[in-house]
Amino acid sequence: MHPLSHYQSLLTEHLNQSNQNLSEPTNLYEPMQYLLQIGGKRLRPVLTLLATDLYQGNAQQAIPAALAVEWFHNFTLMHDDIMDKAPLRRGKQTVHERWNTNTAILSGDAMLIKAYQFLEAYEPVLYTKLMQLFNKTALEVCEGQQWDMNFENQETVSIPQYLKMIEYKTAVLVGCALKMGAYIAYKPEEEATLIYNFGLNLGLAFQLQDDYLDVFGNPETFGKQVGGDIAENKKTYLYLKALEHYQNPQELADLYTLNPTDPTEKIAQVTQIFNTSGAAEQTLKAVESYTEKAIQTLKKLNLPTEHKQYLKTFAYELMGRGV
Amino acid sequence: MHPLSHYQSLLTEHLNQSNQNLSEPTNLYEPMQYLLQIGGKRLRPVLTLLATDLYQGNAQQAIPAALAVEWFHNFTLMHDDIMDKAPLRRGKQTVHERWNTNTAILSGDAMLIKAYQFLEAYEPVLYTKLMQLFNKTALEVCEGQQWDMNFENQETVSIPQYLKMIEYKTAVLVGCALKMGAYIAYKPEEEATLIYNFGLNLGLAFQLQDDYLDVFGNPETFGKQVGGDIAENKKTYLYLKALEHYQNPQELADLYTLNPTDPTEKIAQVTQIFNTSGAAEQTLKAVESYTEKAIQTLKKLNLPTEHKQYLKTFAYELMGRGV
Repeated sequence: MHPLSHYQSLLTEHLNQSNQNLSEPTNLYEPMQYLLQIGGKRLRPVLTLLATDLYQGNAQQAIPAALAVEWFHNFTLMHDDIMDKAPLRRGKQTVHERWNTNTAILSGDAMLIKAYQFLEAYEPVLYTKLMQLFNKTALEVCEGQQWDMNFENQETVSIPQYLKMIEYKTAVLVGCALKMGAYIAYKPEEEATLIYNFGLNLGLAFQLQDDYLDVFGNPETFGKQVGGDIAENKKTYLYLKALEHYQNPQELADLYTLNPTDPTEKIAQVTQIFNTSGAAEQTLKAVESYTEKAIQTLKKLNLPTEHKQYLKTFAYELMGRGV
Repeated sequence: MHPLSHYQSLLTEHLNQSNQNLSEPTNLYEPMQYLLQIGGKRLRPVLTLLATDLYQGNAQQAIPAALAVEWFHNFTLMHDDIMDKAPLRRGKQTVHERWNTNTAILSGDAMLIKAYQFLEAYEPVLYTKLMQLFNKTALEVCEGQQWDMNFENQETVSIPQYLKMIEYKTAVLVGCALKMGAYIAYKPEEEATLIYNFGLNLGLAFQLQDDYLDVFGNPETFGKQVGGDIAENKKTYLYLKALEHYQNPQELADLYTLNPTDPTEKIAQVTQIFNTSGAAEQTLKAVESYTEKAIQTLKKLNLPTEHKQYLKTFAYELMGRGV
């Protein structure tokens, strides 16, 4: 097995190629190129290449699927940024800000279609399997985004509802990316489902940790504004757990009705509630529990021990956010 | 062959079924149901069923492809209505008006994905062919919509540019619908391409006639506001031809900078220019020429004479807008 950076370079090289010759009309295709170049860790598509390689398939053959995953992910970012009215993504203007909402809608649509087009590279039987998984996942991601928007205006959100939302919005694409890699190495459904479940649980752990780090992360390394979720009254796992366990839930609910110009004091108060209520601790426990679930799934995989070890190291490094 | 109404009922029955059991979150799926129920003539999906039947395939087997075509078409309507800021569609509130823009974006995305999902019904080799055609067409439709939006802010638009735009925005999906039907009857590529070209030319004729009827149609039967394109300064075929041939093109260009509260006088003036410049006549000639091209393509089809006659009658009835 190669180090992760090998798969990242392989992906980047082909992503740049996939994105080089702009078709016409250019103002439909430019925003795609722009968004793809903003970058990111490319974790999802790298997992596709990695899974094919782990299963002794040909990682080169996994490239179209990896591109489909990354283009799909960027389509969701382009449309989510409109819906969230986000001005920036990774410090750069979002597409609807730099161009306009219509361009971001239409360019996003075309980006989704182009994601589908990459999969045309596969022979019919494999293609059918990949497409069924991709369609199912894509629809779940839309459902997750809709739940997320609904929760903003919903008085109460239960923990299971929240977990379902992050599963659909975030975790299923991680599972899908890995499962596609297994399909491309011609692994049977049962095996492919196991590695999907590894990805799903890792994705859940990752998202819950993201909730935690948004409040308790190191401002110098986290990359986002610490306390941003609190400032925006986001009903995260931390918040929902605190509502459940804090002695005075109304106090917390009331704090979550405020939108002060300077949110420093509000963030400090809510953070303290997250601590004293035990919500912080319980969130860390949930992160650990989903990570452990992922690791347990690893054991069942039909892979050489050193490949399982590779995935285990990957999982722990990811959760240590070393990756 | 059955009368067209037979295919329309067959389609409607399955469209209603495809749309019956709402999944959760309901506010993602309700807008799809709502838009599909607003209706329309369902011409595109009916053409898929019809083509399979004409080629002695099993029209029942064409149903998933027909649904994919209709769901795709409605996805484009949902997003185009946002981009065009259209308050009404067929006299009913558009989705972004009745719900909101975010819902219309996300529900449209999910509708596109569901369109793709219908095609999963086909065996791998046929599925691959259908998907390649569908992807290509879907991307062209997006490109057509982008050209259409670009033309609004573009000083000059040439006739070939305009024809390319309506080809992509409207005609390719008509060709695609027919070609899918031929694929499902397992006709070879060459034959499928011929019926695609029949659809493409008929689609172009239909759209040019739409431009004509928007100005010269019978207000009682046309269904839209007569002169609507002129009121909105839309650079239609009529307008572009008039610019080419009218003795005083600047006068026309100037009229197209006005946005009066009551557009009656402006519509009357522009209509007169369309007449005196010969643009009206030339538009009718173009309609006739594309219809004739479609009919000529029919002759080459490998179909029994009575089936060719069926398509010919269909084409003439469509262009007489009897359908």
